[in-house]
Amino acid sequence: MAPNDSLLPIQNQIPIPNYVRILDTTLRDGEQSPGAAMSCKEKLEIARLLVKLRVDIIEAGFPSASSDDFNAVKMIAEDVGNDVDNDGYVPVIGGVCRCNKKEVAITWEAIKHAKKPRICAFIATSPIHMEYKLRKTKDEVLNMARDTVKFAQSLGCSDISFAAEDATRSEKQFLYQVLEEVIKVGATTVVIPDTVGVTMPFEYGKFIADIKKNTPGIENVIIATHCHNDLGLATANTIEGARAGARQLEVTINGIGERAGNASLEEVVMALKCRGNDSLGGLHTGIITRQILRTSKMVEEYSGMLLQPHKALVGANVFLHESGIHQDGMLKHRGTYEIISPEDIGLERSLETSIVLGKLSGRQALRKRIEELGYILNADEFEILFKKFKLLAGTKKRVTNADLKVLMSNEAYQDELVYKAA
Amino acid sequence: MAPNDSLLPIQNQIPIPNYVRILDTTLRDGEQSPGAAMSCKEKLEIARLLVKLRVDIIEAGFPSASSDDFNAVKMIAEDVGNDVDNDGYVPVIGGVCRCNKKEVAITWEAIKHAKKPRICAFIATSPIHMEYKLRKTKDEVLNMARDTVKFAQSLGCSDISFAAEDATRSEKQFLYQVLEEVIKVGATTVVIPDTVGVTMPFEYGKFIADIKKNTPGIENVIIATHCHNDLGLATANTIEGARAGARQLEVTINGIGERAGNASLEEVVMALKCRGNDSLGGLHTGIITRQILRTSKMVEEYSGMLLQPHKALVGANVFLHESGIHQDGMLKHRGTYEIISPEDIGLERSLETSIVLGKLSGRQALRKRIEELGYILNADEFEILFKKFKLLAGTKKRVTNADLKVLMSNEAYQDELVYKAA
Repeated sequence: MAPNDSLLPIQNQIPIPNYVRILDTTLRDGEQSPGAAMSCKEKLEIARLLVKLRVDIIEAGFPSASSDDFNAVKMIAEDVGNDVDNDGYVPVIGGVCRCNKKEVAITWEAIKHAKKPRICAFIATSPIHMEYKLRKTKDEVLNMARDTVKFAQSLGCSDISFAAEDATRSEKQFLYQVLEEVIKVGATTVVIPDTVGVTMPFEYGKFIADIKKNTPGIENVIIATHCHNDLGLATANTIEGARAGARQLEVTINGIGERAGNASLEEVVMALKCRGNDSLGGLHTGIITRQILRTSKMVEEYSGMLLQPHKALVGANVFLHESGIHQDGMLKHRGTYEIISPEDIGLERSLETSIVLGKLSGRQALRKRIEELGYILNADEFEILFKKFKLLAGTKKRVTNADLKVLMSNEAYQDELVYKAA
Repeated sequence: MAPNDSLLPIQNQIPIPNYVRILDTTLRDGEQSPGAAMSCKEKLEIARLLVKLRVDIIEAGFPSASSDDFNAVKMIAEDVGNDVDNDGYVPVIGGVCRCNKKEVAITWEAIKHAKKPRICAFIATSPIHMEYKLRKTKDEVLNMARDTVKFAQSLGCSDISFAAEDATRSEKQFLYQVLEEVIKVGATTVVIPDTVGVTMPFEYGKFIADIKKNTPGIENVIIATHCHNDLGLATANTIEGARAGARQLEVTINGIGERAGNASLEEVVMALKCRGNDSLGGLHTGIITRQILRTSKMVEEYSGMLLQPHKALVGANVFLHESGIHQDGMLKHRGTYEIISPEDIGLERSLETSIVLGKLSGRQALRKRIEELGYILNADEFEILFKKFKLLAGTKKRVTNADLKVLMSNEAYQDELVYKAA
């Protein structure tokens, strides 16, 4: 008996209409970032954190690409793919393949021991990809897609995802036809990639809506987004896709992936968490967001894709405040400049450490820090210190507590008092 | 005579309805990134590159924040602010200030020697900011806004921008009222910041459209976007704002800025360049995009905000291709996986150097590289090399030309030939 016989049809697993599944493809599309190759052991460790995050599906790799990839996917399928927790949660483990029997068979071998294995097959449906890359006609592509899904089923796989690569540059009628055919023969999820990241958010939403409206049988499957970030729009496109009816969102930790990467798990999930109820009609995920930061840090380390300080949600700077006006606001009410509590993504910090003293800082922030350090100053003394502080801050990017203690030393004061007396 | 007397009203400077102005605030909001403080000299050098980019407005700093800031803005105003090129182009030089006379006066002193000086005043209009940060009533805020614009005009400044900080969390009726009042007394641009980056793209578009519809006098001024990236949506929001009628977009190079930064100049500009004609109704900017990359590199260096490899458009990885399927596609037709020519942003590269050989690379990419290196192999020889290559790639993130030469050496072949003979 195949290990997944006990599974309900995939669409019945999520009876809540506004529940949005998260497929994490850090280990597949993320690893395709130039220079991001990861070892089996590293991938397994990341997969274990993806379980803590409670992603619905882990796209674990591309088993037919190399023996390394095969081994990593198999190990993940056997390990975390069988680690059912007390609530009955266990992630779907997906393996990616092109539309040919050899790759499907290899993929099935890699994933079949997971409790919930999924074959994720793809073929390009856009004119430019079919003509130049595949060198196939529409009919050939259609047949390959259909045959692949049938073959995957014949192996005992009941959870089959089909992705129409470069969907957003495909002819719509042909795309609807391909999707209809793969659904007929057993695909349970259809993925609509914006492979080259060229689509505007409003267009992507309409694209998903049109697919929903024009593809016979679409109501029986899950529509998935898969958006690239070439123009910085991947997160927005993903959210627009969800608004239009997609119920699986394909993302990566830190947004890594081919070229400019994929939609970021943390951005998509936190946008739904922040705005799901008030503006997104109740859309929500099952992600345990407090696990985001540590997963982000592990992926950053293992992939070598170091994050810029201003990377949304997980960059080093995003919960820091340096300018005087923002610091003043934060000291009065965190909500003035923060919409997310750092604790929500697993960052434990005191408000104090988030106030960076630098040349743009104002009196409010300096006064607060000085009090915390235990100094009690009268107004004149404070003004002297503030001037010293501004001078120092002009030569040094960050003024630390240690710097402040030096400024507070007798000598520093002495100079100023002498100056004032003169 | 004030140096800007010869200027037409700002709205008449841009007779083309789909022309979108770019305001770069790298030197103001960008510098507010924790740790990004830059010297006067660095700011001037960046401003000179912003001129090469042909940004319409350089928001050069916050003159009243510190004497350093004052000096930098003044230097930029006097230097690039007077550097009229052969086409008559010279950037507007903006200085930011809060709504009080003292700051306005300081700002005017800093910018007034530019050919086109602009005072960029702001005050928060959201309940949370007014109550907790400003501790002002609505009436007080309204009066401060109006008085500031009047005072700026009285100094001889005819180009006055007014920003309603935290506009997207403001009560709409109050916001319309504030905008109406500042327009009445002479504001020529009104800025609608999504200060905390909490707004969904479809909401931001509607927000701008509603302002356009409900604010008396709005047809006489330019509406500007100013979007933060806390949820990864700044670029999308900016584009939605432009679609809804905004004709000034406030951005930073590399997307630096408070917390998760601002909308990136390069993302916004290239999205309009890629899709302006076919899906954005003819929206376009005057930016010389070939200057993007070097400006990005200078800002990266001077701000210390190092970019992640997958930063859209300007990250180190975004024009590289490592996975076999993508490499194969790229070798057949660049359009399969690239929507932008690297040359368009000023990156001179050969296709060869964009193909990174690693463990996910396939035969096509290896064959091409080997040919470029001058080797001619028969099919058997190539298969031997390919196996060696895959083995090496499994232990090394990138396989270089030097590595390939070692693999091609007699010794490496010899081993394999011996093995095959055995």
